[in-house]
Amino acid sequence: MKHYSLLLLFIMLGYNYSYSQSADVLQLKKSYEIALTDNTTYDWLRHLSNQIGGRLSGSLQMQRAVTYTKSSLDHLGLDKVWLQPVLVSKWVRGADAFSYFETTPGVTTNLPIVALGGSVATALNGVKAALIEIQSSEDLEKLGSIGIKGKIVFFNIRLNPLVIHPMEGYTDYQDALESCIQKAGLYGAVGIIATSPTFSLDDLTHTGYISYDNVLASLRIPVAAVSTNSAALLSASLALNPDINFYFKQNCKQLNAIISHNVIGEIRGTKYPKEIVVLTSHLDSWDLGDGALGSGAGCAQSIEALRLLLATEYKPKRTVRVVLFADGEMGLHSVKKYLKGAAEAGENHVLSLNASLGGLQPIGFHLVGGKAEIKSMESWKPLLEPYGIFELSSGSDLLYGQIKIDNTPISAGLTTNAQQYFDYHHSENDRFKNVNKRSLAFGSASLASFIYLFDKYDVPINFHKM
Amino acid sequence: MKHYSLLLLFIMLGYNYSYSQSADVLQLKKSYEIALTDNTTYDWLRHLSNQIGGRLSGSLQMQRAVTYTKSSLDHLGLDKVWLQPVLVSKWVRGADAFSYFETTPGVTTNLPIVALGGSVATALNGVKAALIEIQSSEDLEKLGSIGIKGKIVFFNIRLNPLVIHPMEGYTDYQDALESCIQKAGLYGAVGIIATSPTFSLDDLTHTGYISYDNVLASLRIPVAAVSTNSAALLSASLALNPDINFYFKQNCKQLNAIISHNVIGEIRGTKYPKEIVVLTSHLDSWDLGDGALGSGAGCAQSIEALRLLLATEYKPKRTVRVVLFADGEMGLHSVKKYLKGAAEAGENHVLSLNASLGGLQPIGFHLVGGKAEIKSMESWKPLLEPYGIFELSSGSDLLYGQIKIDNTPISAGLTTNAQQYFDYHHSENDRFKNVNKRSLAFGSASLASFIYLFDKYDVPINFHKM
Repeated sequence: MKHYSLLLLFIMLGYNYSYSQSADVLQLKKSYEIALTDNTTYDWLRHLSNQIGGRLSGSLQMQRAVTYTKSSLDHLGLDKVWLQPVLVSKWVRGADAFSYFETTPGVTTNLPIVALGGSVATALNGVKAALIEIQSSEDLEKLGSIGIKGKIVFFNIRLNPLVIHPMEGYTDYQDALESCIQKAGLYGAVGIIATSPTFSLDDLTHTGYISYDNVLASLRIPVAAVSTNSAALLSASLALNPDINFYFKQNCKQLNAIISHNVIGEIRGTKYPKEIVVLTSHLDSWDLGDGALGSGAGCAQSIEALRLLLATEYKPKRTVRVVLFADGEMGLHSVKKYLKGAAEAGENHVLSLNASLGGLQPIGFHLVGGKAEIKSMESWKPLLEPYGIFELSSGSDLLYGQIKIDNTPISAGLTTNAQQYFDYHHSENDRFKNVNKRSLAFGSASLASFIYLFDKYDVPINFHKM
Repeated sequence: MKHYSLLLLFIMLGYNYSYSQSADVLQLKKSYEIALTDNTTYDWLRHLSNQIGGRLSGSLQMQRAVTYTKSSLDHLGLDKVWLQPVLVSKWVRGADAFSYFETTPGVTTNLPIVALGGSVATALNGVKAALIEIQSSEDLEKLGSIGIKGKIVFFNIRLNPLVIHPMEGYTDYQDALESCIQKAGLYGAVGIIATSPTFSLDDLTHTGYISYDNVLASLRIPVAAVSTNSAALLSASLALNPDINFYFKQNCKQLNAIISHNVIGEIRGTKYPKEIVVLTSHLDSWDLGDGALGSGAGCAQSIEALRLLLATEYKPKRTVRVVLFADGEMGLHSVKKYLKGAAEAGENHVLSLNASLGGLQPIGFHLVGGKAEIKSMESWKPLLEPYGIFELSSGSDLLYGQIKIDNTPISAGLTTNAQQYFDYHHSENDRFKNVNKRSLAFGSASLASFIYLFDKYDVPINFHKM
């Protein structure tokens, strides 16, 4: 072990030395210095958050955000900026949802709830039924239609605290909820009340997207979320008295699909213009907060990454393109549309880089790709570590959000201090005031630096000769 | 480069393999799992923050915190728990400070200010004088006594955004302020208004400790802090009109020194009980918030680290001791007293491990010590990286706070996502609600894991044979 460790240190020192003289150190330094002293990313995000606000896919706010970010890109002096029309889902929340639980006829306690995105409404008068709690997917199976029929299912499954990366835990949670929506419908449940996915015990309700794709129209039941404090109260009340009725009412609605736009801007490559490095985020957000973290920050950082490449006068060999998607939270039709357009144009995407993890302090990049390419990218550590980018390693694309351009040899995602993310995620806490200016700037410069290194060192290796 | 990178990967894989089979992996897993599922650290911190609150050295709240944390340690079943009496400074803030600036006689604008800790009061009626801005230490020199005499100095020096580690920037800030206090007094200034050290542009006033140690009693002038928004307003107003008067009034007071206590608990070493691994934080805090981040979190985490060693049934070879200091924010008399006691008892401290950076998400440990020892500790990376502890490297003890037990072969500090720290630091924002439960737990388990590895692998090498 001692021997290894000596070797390791020697190699690390070797790296540092070889890089310290290089143009790379200077290029990164310039990017971080500009990002840390200018307020550009922060000011864009302030406008997006405070002047426009929460931006549901297909909403007026989203339309304003499209106009605003296109104009921000226009001002950079890129080679091309355009809008790509996309047909997106338009779901509206309607009036505030309302609920109570009833322990004895007439003795009721109100609980704040929110409809999950894409949910159907309840009947106009709401729905009232016996509440049945499940704490695992197995609980639902055990109860079956006998235990479920005519009842409201209390989906009291939490984020698993033992899963170290919260995004993995969230994926498990969403899988369980999706399965519950399918089965509870089949078993004849009349509604689902889900505990919000957060590690905190607090009063925040978190919305999120649900899909009825595998559910017959007649079996689609309304789904709403309660806070973890409300869930604890419900669970404790059910433990004292299993005969509790629950009432809720929500009048959200799926309207007709509507035209929205992907916002796209690019710097044309000097040598391989047909090879595209694409940096993505989603411009739409949830509506309970202002969408600053999810993912206004990623959009502002993506625009800033282009600005930093221009400001540092780096001329990329490949085309570097930013795409802000129109419905990252609501079905990802915008990603499919983009891919279709790219295929039709015969475009070659060499890197899909995603920035949608909330503008929290960046700690690294998760990489998906061939072994040789990943090894090559891992060798950038000594350059990035001085800026707190310690984690450069292969990881699932789960870990940095859902958005990925398929069929690219390399995909990567900026990873952040995700342990805190679920304090904000999809809740009214997702607000500009919870974004740290400095963390935001570190993210922008890290994205620009990653693209610079990727382009300069021709990763994927020899791809342009293919 | 490719060659190095292959070798590096090979070595890393080699490490992973050798560790993956080992007891170390299991020991760390147990610690993190207990910390992530139990709420102990969080509950201790909740009590300390919400039931006791801000704890100025020598205050009643501090006395309550001593009683509470001693009782928490008592309940763990340690080998020894005790209080060490310490004579500490007792400074009281008095009534809220008050200030305004006057652009034209009679035209005044109020600004929120706070006295810096340890500052003298103004005259009972306050002090009113022309305001003179300095933006660097050189500005003060240039003005000299001619430009300064009879005026209030507006110390408008900011944290330098280009210094990557904020604690380094803060040290520079404090050095500049200390020098300004000495010189402005000599030059005949009648007060100092300092811009709060934060990267944010907001309305928060940040307090902090100032010392008049090198200033004659007759030259000690009152010092207060304004927010960065107020500072921007003042600076812009001075740019329009250099003839601005400033008025402030604060009746803070230095009382007689008073007895407080260091709270100490230990697990006796099975093999080298006289070698002491000491884990430190400070129990006192500032009074504008509840001191959850600075450093209630570090105290709760230090106690939890002992609990985790007990709960995982690790029997340390060396004595593992927690010391919660009585005046970490107010002169560090408690550290001197502790060192004196240790020297008198002939105790051998082999590691000084500090946890006082705010309970934010831990990212690593900064290490100070011999090269061989640091190399040995760096080899623990593969064990700690799965928990987000990526940074194990030699660094200045500046970077993790002021508290250090001198003359130990190794000192180390848990480092956290410090970029956010100055959003909270010494302000009313330093509150329990801003602590993330999960980040807190990661910190506790990281401290326990570091101590376990340090003890098991006999770092410093062969020290016990000296």
